[in-house]
Amino acid sequence: MAEAGLTRADLERAAPREVRRAIREGRWRSNTKRLALGHHQANVTIVPERHAFDFMRFCFNNPKALPLIDVTEPGDPVPRKAAPDADLRTDVAEYLVLRDGQVAERARSLDKVWRKDHVAFLTGCNLSMDRVMLEAGMPLPHLQSEEAFPAQYRSSIACVPAGAFKGPLVVSLRPVPDALVVPLIELTGRYELSHGAPVHVGDPRRIGIADLSKVDWGRENAIAPEHTPMFWACGITAQAAAIASRIPEMIVHAPGRMFVTDLIVREAIS
Amino acid sequence: MAEAGLTRADLERAAPREVRRAIREGRWRSNTKRLALGHHQANVTIVPERHAFDFMRFCFNNPKALPLIDVTEPGDPVPRKAAPDADLRTDVAEYLVLRDGQVAERARSLDKVWRKDHVAFLTGCNLSMDRVMLEAGMPLPHLQSEEAFPAQYRSSIACVPAGAFKGPLVVSLRPVPDALVVPLIELTGRYELSHGAPVHVGDPRRIGIADLSKVDWGRENAIAPEHTPMFWACGITAQAAAIASRIPEMIVHAPGRMFVTDLIVREAIS
Repeated sequence: MAEAGLTRADLERAAPREVRRAIREGRWRSNTKRLALGHHQANVTIVPERHAFDFMRFCFNNPKALPLIDVTEPGDPVPRKAAPDADLRTDVAEYLVLRDGQVAERARSLDKVWRKDHVAFLTGCNLSMDRVMLEAGMPLPHLQSEEAFPAQYRSSIACVPAGAFKGPLVVSLRPVPDALVVPLIELTGRYELSHGAPVHVGDPRRIGIADLSKVDWGRENAIAPEHTPMFWACGITAQAAAIASRIPEMIVHAPGRMFVTDLIVREAIS
Repeated sequence: MAEAGLTRADLERAAPREVRRAIREGRWRSNTKRLALGHHQANVTIVPERHAFDFMRFCFNNPKALPLIDVTEPGDPVPRKAAPDADLRTDVAEYLVLRDGQVAERARSLDKVWRKDHVAFLTGCNLSMDRVMLEAGMPLPHLQSEEAFPAQYRSSIACVPAGAFKGPLVVSLRPVPDALVVPLIELTGRYELSHGAPVHVGDPRRIGIADLSKVDWGRENAIAPEHTPMFWACGITAQAAAIASRIPEMIVHAPGRMFVTDLIVREAIS
């Protein structure tokens, strides 16, 4: 749990800029669950400008999976709305460079990769809800043990395509005590930037998931007795589209290593 | 009030597709206030694909002025989300073609103007609120007389720029009985796609409007005693940006002649 002297508990209470600094300086390399609790965490998707309008429409067409939090001007690595003192080339713990839909490179920073035609998109993430979940007393596995992390699956639901981008909706599983199914739908439904209400509740086969033990991303979560599997749209949908559509170049955060923004989840007023 | 046998009262109760047909067939050429009451009306902004990503970011950066309802694939004149049986080349009563920020042409249809690199954006409009206003008993002038129409002004508030697009926030004035100022803020705040809550209430000089009689678009509305001027962000902001930024080509609806969508204002659930 400790990394270079830092514990998850330390960064749980830290301001977003402290978390970003720890990541930038290599003092935190693990996933970002519970970090800077209560602030929006974001999926990072970077594409060349020639694909950026297509990808922005793909976000607009699939808002439950890719709720747009920020988009940069071409070549500008600063997310001016979400974290004006951040740098998207350095403030994520690990990046994946996908070429033609395959992971071609893993990188600790984009200093040697970033170009002036790159555009970065930040989209919402379910980990943003960690504080809301804790305060509501929702006993989700990934909040209770260091090892646990949500499992993500390709579903049989197709995204609405846009230009070069098409692919399956990726969903994130949370096993939920039966009595909390309805309250959790109502609670998450209020947070559109964190994927809102689930896209499916119950039998995974109804959305094309035959075997919960075969996770596509994340870690398997056992479904305990008197628990119901609930599925939320997931930001990994962007990566799945790069793979399905063989997008020439897309740079993303490594799974679970999100970008931590300055935006407060409970302050959604525009 | 009658046009080719049609009255505003006829089209007030009509379905959106009936209104679009009347417009397409040249049977309705006036403004669209009160038409297909309760459905979203939209500002239309068409730009070549090379400016489309910049314009989409301009909408994202200025969501109170340009809340995005739909965006088409390049070359596709059908707004698949907002009205899948409509055609944006014909279903607006009058279009303006702006070149280098000047009105170069007025057209009843875009049949001879539309190209396969054109992208159409639909953004929210305050006229969408007409039914909500009527049902809430808000006595707004434009709903009470055929001649009245909201006045729009360039404000001193600058939009957040994006690529080639910059310019002033355009605001739309409603004179409101003093007792209804707070209820109207609360009411409109619930409808983000129709510009949400006002951007300013009270003295117009605070947002750079020295003389309410000098309207930039629409018609002057006198401020009666015990009434307060309230200003909402307005979709004409797109045109103002084309003018301020001398955008090479932008096609828009003529003032007050909006595109009528199938989307119901009260059904905002995603």
